[in-house]
Amino acid sequence: MNLELVTIGNELLLGFTLDTNSREIARLLAAHGIRVVRKTTVPDEAESIDTAVRQALERTGVVITTGGLGPTNDDITKKTVARLFGVGLVTDAAYLAALTRRFRELGFNDMPESNRTQAEMPEGALPLKNRWGTAPGIWLEGEPGRVIMLPGVPREMRGLLEHEVLPRLTSLSDYQPDAVIESLVLRTTGIPESELADRLEGVEKRIDPVTLAYLPSLEGVDLRLTAWEVEAGRASELLARAASQVREILGELVYGEDEDDLAAVVLELLAESGNTLAVAESCTGGLIGGRITNVPGSSAVFRGGVIAYSNDLKTSRLGVPVGMLEQCGAVSGEVAGRMALGARTACGSDYGLAVTGIAGPTGGTEEKPVGTVWIGLSGPDASSETLLHFPGGREAIRTRTVQAALNTLRRALLSKETAG
Amino acid sequence: MNLELVTIGNELLLGFTLDTNSREIARLLAAHGIRVVRKTTVPDEAESIDTAVRQALERTGVVITTGGLGPTNDDITKKTVARLFGVGLVTDAAYLAALTRRFRELGFNDMPESNRTQAEMPEGALPLKNRWGTAPGIWLEGEPGRVIMLPGVPREMRGLLEHEVLPRLTSLSDYQPDAVIESLVLRTTGIPESELADRLEGVEKRIDPVTLAYLPSLEGVDLRLTAWEVEAGRASELLARAASQVREILGELVYGEDEDDLAAVVLELLAESGNTLAVAESCTGGLIGGRITNVPGSSAVFRGGVIAYSNDLKTSRLGVPVGMLEQCGAVSGEVAGRMALGARTACGSDYGLAVTGIAGPTGGTEEKPVGTVWIGLSGPDASSETLLHFPGGREAIRTRTVQAALNTLRRALLSKETAG
Repeated sequence: MNLELVTIGNELLLGFTLDTNSREIARLLAAHGIRVVRKTTVPDEAESIDTAVRQALERTGVVITTGGLGPTNDDITKKTVARLFGVGLVTDAAYLAALTRRFRELGFNDMPESNRTQAEMPEGALPLKNRWGTAPGIWLEGEPGRVIMLPGVPREMRGLLEHEVLPRLTSLSDYQPDAVIESLVLRTTGIPESELADRLEGVEKRIDPVTLAYLPSLEGVDLRLTAWEVEAGRASELLARAASQVREILGELVYGEDEDDLAAVVLELLAESGNTLAVAESCTGGLIGGRITNVPGSSAVFRGGVIAYSNDLKTSRLGVPVGMLEQCGAVSGEVAGRMALGARTACGSDYGLAVTGIAGPTGGTEEKPVGTVWIGLSGPDASSETLLHFPGGREAIRTRTVQAALNTLRRALLSKETAG
Repeated sequence: MNLELVTIGNELLLGFTLDTNSREIARLLAAHGIRVVRKTTVPDEAESIDTAVRQALERTGVVITTGGLGPTNDDITKKTVARLFGVGLVTDAAYLAALTRRFRELGFNDMPESNRTQAEMPEGALPLKNRWGTAPGIWLEGEPGRVIMLPGVPREMRGLLEHEVLPRLTSLSDYQPDAVIESLVLRTTGIPESELADRLEGVEKRIDPVTLAYLPSLEGVDLRLTAWEVEAGRASELLARAASQVREILGELVYGEDEDDLAAVVLELLAESGNTLAVAESCTGGLIGGRITNVPGSSAVFRGGVIAYSNDLKTSRLGVPVGMLEQCGAVSGEVAGRMALGARTACGSDYGLAVTGIAGPTGGTEEKPVGTVWIGLSGPDASSETLLHFPGGREAIRTRTVQAALNTLRRALLSKETAG
């Protein structure tokens, strides 16, 4: 089943708004075997909307539109599509009653007149209940084809698409769930794309018809496995098989799947082993703590830490000897190790994780250029210091450092698990 | 001058990639009086590309395409557009030489055969030098109109657009820079949209023809002033005048313009007054420090701080009395104030900024629901404790808290400036 998208709004063509709706619609539909074969963006202008919807209907017979359903004068999608179908607008009494009730619940005695127009529907259309806002979605069928109109507000669009549109599309007689496109992401960090490719040589043939794509970012390299145009039930099975083949090769280089967060993975490992954590941050200035505490429930494991941005705090708060700072420099393995131990001691935790580095743009030397980072880890059984060199600007170096620090702790916890 | 965009790539229609290119192209062109009047996204498939480009040329005569210029078999933009213009592909000797040299510089003896195709150009086309990658842009003119082909990689697209395409478009004889659309953003935080609207009542008439739009986000409400379709020189003048009218009403509620970062603004105020800063973070877990240290040069002002996620660290590291924690609770004005003082003392700074709150999803009570946040500020002359209530989930509450804490410090520094 193929369809086209028509996204409507001046703000999209002026570059004021980024169109995230299209991506979400495409992804969700593809996972259910429905292909978006073209997308057109037009301004809030009747003729452009009319041409775009008309031509799209001629090609595929089904069109989803987003935008132009609000209460203001700019919002002309409904009117324009009704005219294309040769029908008028009529007030949907049930929707009007619901809308009035809603405004009363929100404490307004009178609903603004502009909102009243939101209860108007093209004759014969089915209103789709919008539990996330005031503009109903609209499903209109007729001689020209099927047009499904959704609001442009992402939260409302998403709710309507998932709960109102998708169930109806997949129960149409011309829906054939034999061409599902589904993907699964395996997440790695701390290993370059080229090395991953070397290790995975030959695997692409073995996982066929599933394909493998490398998606590098500051946080690592994600591996996207995709099953193309297979039967609905078969996609997950094929993906699971391919994922386990890749995992067999990469082992613990893979830290998670899809949206898994490395901080959450580390917290879970700590919780499993009954250990607590503290941090000592120099060049990251609190980002590691910030990332860890973004995970709900992190307080069970994470105690806190010290942001030792200035050198004298490394001494006064973390016990790094002044002589060590002078002799080795603040960015050194010795200092990183001592900071990690200092975090443990100061916060009374089982593990201490520390970073010190040069994030730039200034502060680099020939010996220690911008991007030089030391990660110190101190634990109940062992400690380590790791030297890394990161490319990129200040933000890139800091982001990579957070990820590398968390991964250092993850690898240490895993190897202890194996050893134990 | 109007033109259309055609963005090419299966990944865009499958929802794997978010199309950020379109927004950038639209924004940059609008600021130079060139309007993108329609955007079409098609798969890597000759017939779709052909139809989309052909129809767009019929409507506007000028089309910019992105994507499909890479070295692989999927990349068929060049071939398809050449056919539409009725010309063949010929190897551009100069580009081939440059490409070969480039590969040699990168340490490869032989250039892959697939890259050789990148030097092929539609007959009569002008190659646009890509200093950011291997695929040249292509400028093709002929009977059907003008087609400008750009690679899909954002960095390469951006470089080519700015340095190669824009100068050529604006020197065309049909370019009339009389319809520039330019905008300027004034940034506020800590004041709700409705209150801003009340204060700014009547201003919209006075700034006409500049328009005002409210853009609320977790970090505050941005006010976008836009000058529509005016002469090139006049836009900045109109915007500057409108901005000063709005600033006159809002005063120090406006913390910056366009991409200004609140943390950088605060650091500048501290540097101006020769003061240093330390933080004590509970519910934000390091995010304030992380945000501050994202600003290059922050080490001149920011000393560091304590992440006191667990209660006993509030006592041992920041000197909050156990009795106070028991009596008032960790989320209280008393504790926030004591944490701020503790940060100052522990880190030897002039100002201490502290937050303690309930970010959820658990931990809320009837008296102190999720979203309750206290901000403590301790300075050389005065201290304050501020109670706030934030809506939203964990991430939203934490983001709002960081912004509110920074803004509390900003307002205190400004009022001291005024008093002094």
